[in-house]
Amino acid sequence: MEAKLTELKARLQEVNDLDMAGAVLGWDQATYMPPGGAEARGRQMATLGRLSHEKFTSDEVGQLLEDLKGYEAGRPYDANDAGLIRVTRREYERRVKVPAAWVGRFAEHSAASYQAWTVARPANDFAAVRPNLEKTLDLSRELANYFPGYQHIADPLIDFSDYGMKAESVRALFAELRAALRPIMQAITAHPPADDSCLMQVYPEAAQLAFGAEIIKAYGYDFNRGRQDKTHHPFMTKFSLGDVRITTRVKEHDLAEALFSTLHEAGHAMYEQGIDRAYEGTPLANGTSAGVHESQSRLWENVVGRSRALWQHFYPKLQAAFPQQLSGVPLETFYRAINKVQKSLIRTDADEVTYNLHVMLRLDFELDMLDGKLAVRDLPEAWHERYDSDLGVTAPNDSDGVLQDVHWFAGTIGGAFQGYTLGNILGAQFYAAALKARPEIPDEVAQGQFGTLHGWLTEKVYQPGSKYTAAEVVERATGGPLAIGPYISYLRNKYGELYEL
Amino acid sequence: MEAKLTELKARLQEVNDLDMAGAVLGWDQATYMPPGGAEARGRQMATLGRLSHEKFTSDEVGQLLEDLKGYEAGRPYDANDAGLIRVTRREYERRVKVPAAWVGRFAEHSAASYQAWTVARPANDFAAVRPNLEKTLDLSRELANYFPGYQHIADPLIDFSDYGMKAESVRALFAELRAALRPIMQAITAHPPADDSCLMQVYPEAAQLAFGAEIIKAYGYDFNRGRQDKTHHPFMTKFSLGDVRITTRVKEHDLAEALFSTLHEAGHAMYEQGIDRAYEGTPLANGTSAGVHESQSRLWENVVGRSRALWQHFYPKLQAAFPQQLSGVPLETFYRAINKVQKSLIRTDADEVTYNLHVMLRLDFELDMLDGKLAVRDLPEAWHERYDSDLGVTAPNDSDGVLQDVHWFAGTIGGAFQGYTLGNILGAQFYAAALKARPEIPDEVAQGQFGTLHGWLTEKVYQPGSKYTAAEVVERATGGPLAIGPYISYLRNKYGELYEL
Repeated sequence: MEAKLTELKARLQEVNDLDMAGAVLGWDQATYMPPGGAEARGRQMATLGRLSHEKFTSDEVGQLLEDLKGYEAGRPYDANDAGLIRVTRREYERRVKVPAAWVGRFAEHSAASYQAWTVARPANDFAAVRPNLEKTLDLSRELANYFPGYQHIADPLIDFSDYGMKAESVRALFAELRAALRPIMQAITAHPPADDSCLMQVYPEAAQLAFGAEIIKAYGYDFNRGRQDKTHHPFMTKFSLGDVRITTRVKEHDLAEALFSTLHEAGHAMYEQGIDRAYEGTPLANGTSAGVHESQSRLWENVVGRSRALWQHFYPKLQAAFPQQLSGVPLETFYRAINKVQKSLIRTDADEVTYNLHVMLRLDFELDMLDGKLAVRDLPEAWHERYDSDLGVTAPNDSDGVLQDVHWFAGTIGGAFQGYTLGNILGAQFYAAALKARPEIPDEVAQGQFGTLHGWLTEKVYQPGSKYTAAEVVERATGGPLAIGPYISYLRNKYGELYEL
Repeated sequence: MEAKLTELKARLQEVNDLDMAGAVLGWDQATYMPPGGAEARGRQMATLGRLSHEKFTSDEVGQLLEDLKGYEAGRPYDANDAGLIRVTRREYERRVKVPAAWVGRFAEHSAASYQAWTVARPANDFAAVRPNLEKTLDLSRELANYFPGYQHIADPLIDFSDYGMKAESVRALFAELRAALRPIMQAITAHPPADDSCLMQVYPEAAQLAFGAEIIKAYGYDFNRGRQDKTHHPFMTKFSLGDVRITTRVKEHDLAEALFSTLHEAGHAMYEQGIDRAYEGTPLANGTSAGVHESQSRLWENVVGRSRALWQHFYPKLQAAFPQQLSGVPLETFYRAINKVQKSLIRTDADEVTYNLHVMLRLDFELDMLDGKLAVRDLPEAWHERYDSDLGVTAPNDSDGVLQDVHWFAGTIGGAFQGYTLGNILGAQFYAAALKARPEIPDEVAQGQFGTLHGWLTEKVYQPGSKYTAAEVVERATGGPLAIGPYISYLRNKYGELYEL
């Protein structure tokens, strides 16, 4: 049995090598690749994706998993080997249903779509990418239909990113959250919005990047096992547990853009950097779900990154880095600026209260497009209407409307967005549990020290990688299931104090 | 038959996708990869190399080549399809002799060696990489021994890079060249060396890179299908015919370092960018040999790049870019500085006359190591002795001795260096032929125009890719076989004028 396990690991390692090579190609495409490289790059990524898929779903892997059933059953649930076989089987049973040809076609299509989007967004040209998006919808439906028996056609796609969730359960959770958020939003927006003009001065790019790097180094992001580059739409990517990179985009007239995207992506990256190195090259060496992943980006971006405690330590340093811009701006003004709550157009720039409204409407659009209630050609208009009704704002164009997010241009329609709100909920829930276990955390944060928090998260969330499901991680870390209570309490406390609600 | 050819092309495309993905990983390793990424990167590149090798040497490809023999025979030698089958068969028959396991082991070893070299060179620590180099020697011998029947064990390795050449033929050519160079070197070194202190001022990095980019843009290097990044040891790499990148290293106290390495790598890159796009994804879409490749880097770096004509146009621009450093330096001083001939320590910095001495001793070391006359442990000492006897200089350390070149730390021992001197010879030979066909070239160069030269080279050398062998390319472009005459004439004319010999 040991020999079969060794063989399984060798096969998984080969699959992982192909996947990580594909990730390098994707990173290069999004950071440094010249325009002329685009055409071949799509095909190259498709080939790698197809070969990885063929190798992972081979009969040999299926047989090894079959042969290892007894071995797995004879070991504790928590044992690494048992976890490896269990998680690999789950992935195998899922992926074996998808033909390699689909994987290749989708990878090539995604690369082309992404490339088209990078041109179409600045040009405000939805028409140019409409065919891409229509094909994405077709391919997404095709994918879902390899998993017959679903209740909603989005279910398999949601399950890919957030194992165990379905359209119905996400909708129910979102309805509960929307109801709880409404009074908080109403109370806040009854006040005039905070003045964030201090953020909207000229901040030179290099100094912005250096300052963001200083904070995430203090957080615990390891630059020896990562780096930061510029891109169109910030993301985290991993080429091994020893090479977990982040990207950002910089606006010289908006300090918040690069700064908080840096903290956000560093949260994702610390999760991956914190996974047990023994899992390298296996399906365990990944974050366990989109929601848990996003909990870490939102925790480090918002719960910690927009806290008064953190800025008590870092604001004097920020003032020193930008004396001309900030020496006359008190901490309180800055703190209120970075926590300004206002219904707005752009999801990634949204405050942590209204952010979920952006996610909820995207989820609805995904579900409606997948089940045929909404055609791609009607999406831009539907987008503007829904922003108007939900957020009271209308984008002057599609660039800041339906073209604002990369997701549907680089992945499936379905499963792309629910993780963001799950992350908001879970980020607060994990942080509350960390605080209960280690009440000294806020004082440490106020001194620019993050070791206790980072250590607790590493032990409870990062280290196990995918060995446990999202539900299991939440249970083990917080003692209960996913719940919106801590998130709502967090918002009430923070904004209650800010707005004297 | 058309169907079989289509299938062959599809298989070659898949192999090419894997190879190009491997090239992206190599480029990233040499430019941006953080230290923590090294371990997995070696394995990833090995996996890609092994898979590519397995797919290229598969029975199916062998059978297709067999089936296509009649098709090939029925088509003219110059036809693209005939060339594709011919060149693929040659490569297949070569690679099928090498086990995939060797390819994987060598790729992983090379990545580790390269990483070790990037640390050992600045640390002057030959001992740290000696085991790597010993293993490289073993693996190189292993590779050669998959091709029994050679006269010298280096023959198969030389043939890989410069098809049709052998240790004996290279040695004979080098002996002829050495004899012809001797009187030129003696005549030049009887004069005091040129004063190159104008190059050894402080030149800020960004301005250096911008100026180099300006020249290569004028040459015809297409930045829409390429880019330039920094690295330890400059190289050109290709991810498709639409993405051909160059790298350089910058010394702020030496203007020549980045400038001429930029012109050099751009020469390589223009060759690849100029290949017929119809060959994309096939073995035809490569430069045909190391020697012909190097002829282009040396032609654009030296024959054009260090010509008085070019600097008549660009020197005023260089002075404008660096007024503080150069406004008081006459063109003639600068021209003499960049053409200073002096026996020196570092191959890549060597002038175009003494450069070949650096290559010749490396070839001898390769031959001696491969046939057991020289042990790796004795190499540093042998290196110092040979530099003393051939060039009259001794490096104060191994960093500028045996550790100066990346080649043996990233590829085989054997076949790594002869192409440089072949390139010097061929660069002058191609340029002489171009001048004969298009006598207006020097006048155009003096006006910063390179279209006629670039066009002639594209037609004669670049466009055919690997469809013709090096010998065929030389014959077609110059009307005769490789010959040292034009190179010797070029040196005599240029340095005769400079030193009034």
